[in-house]
Amino acid sequence: VASWAILGGTGAQGLGLALRLAAAGEPVIVGSRVAERARDAAEKIRARVPGADAMGLDNASASRAAERIVLSFPAEGLVDALGALAPELAGKLVVDVMVPLAFHRGRADVTAVAGAPSVGELVQERLPRSRVVCAFKNVPAELLQDLEQPARGDVLVCGEDASARAEVAAAVARLPELRAVDAGALANARYVEGITALLVNLNRQHRARTSISIVGLPA
Amino acid sequence: VASWAILGGTGAQGLGLALRLAAAGEPVIVGSRVAERARDAAEKIRARVPGADAMGLDNASASRAAERIVLSFPAEGLVDALGALAPELAGKLVVDVMVPLAFHRGRADVTAVAGAPSVGELVQERLPRSRVVCAFKNVPAELLQDLEQPARGDVLVCGEDASARAEVAAAVARLPELRAVDAGALANARYVEGITALLVNLNRQHRARTSISIVGLPA
Repeated sequence: VASWAILGGTGAQGLGLALRLAAAGEPVIVGSRVAERARDAAEKIRARVPGADAMGLDNASASRAAERIVLSFPAEGLVDALGALAPELAGKLVVDVMVPLAFHRGRADVTAVAGAPSVGELVQERLPRSRVVCAFKNVPAELLQDLEQPARGDVLVCGEDASARAEVAAAVARLPELRAVDAGALANARYVEGITALLVNLNRQHRARTSISIVGLPA
Repeated sequence: VASWAILGGTGAQGLGLALRLAAAGEPVIVGSRVAERARDAAEKIRARVPGADAMGLDNASASRAAERIVLSFPAEGLVDALGALAPELAGKLVVDVMVPLAFHRGRADVTAVAGAPSVGELVQERLPRSRVVCAFKNVPAELLQDLEQPARGDVLVCGEDASARAEVAAAVARLPELRAVDAGALANARYVEGITALLVNLNRQHRARTSISIVGLPA
């Protein structure tokens, strides 16, 4: 049970992260609303990462099968999904990697979900018995999926539980070229999510795949 | 008239930027509500930067005396200050470096001014005849003021007028160690301002002076 379950793991960000975790030797369980799609994604991971320990399950079964859960759901239906899974996720480490973006006239903007100041805060509110940590919000899905390229940049890690943040930071440290930065309180998630919108806009403008780095931290 | 006027230039961020511009050989005019305080600040600049071309004037006179204006006002009174100066600032390049932060329980958060999604957008709305560019929002005042230290990091430059952004980027290029990143539309100011709150919180948590860098831009 040291494995990761990536719920919504058939989407771009979830699958990208599952690939990177599998490539780092971590057992991964892909969760999806439809078990068959999860199994297909797991097969894709095994095809791309030789020797990967990857399986697919429906979201509820995946939640029960792992102690560390990554949430990568689309914004629509998120609140219902959280409500349905809350019992399974109680007591567990839940890593929220989501940023709900809306596109309008070629620009990305963060959209509020259920009136919350950030998705991170919403997830913790709806999963009060889980240890919620935000991470990987600024690492682009395409970059995560492109295993030929190092996924460079800093992973800002925030959440109310310092030991949960440390656990996620240790996982980040196993992924080559990414650095975890402890970003403290969960309320910082609103700024971390905003950075994603900014980076998406920079990507479009500069035809690039950007991520961010914090300069000036003590070594 | 190729000089810069830094309005609100007796505050930490404004004075820091005036010092850096003066150190790069640019003539600077410090503007303040009270002309005498502006003159004191200019004297400080001349004392710290040998050979600096620095003078102090009241804000309205400073606005008239320069073609490129930096706004570094406190959040309170900002809307009134913009209204009063709008005629003087018409047709000019206006660089907004402001981020209104509120501190609560040791955390910094961005506060909305006059209901605007960002200060940058508010400034452009209140100065419709000026070319408004946001820049230097993420470079800490203490770092700008500490001339012994290079002010490392990226300066995200956004605004509606591409040639105005380019003009500010060229000025950034004259400051050693800082890199300008064209961040496109003014609406990105909301995310840039959020980064400042995040960095202030990181500084407190890590006892550091952080800034940010965008990774992955084409050279």
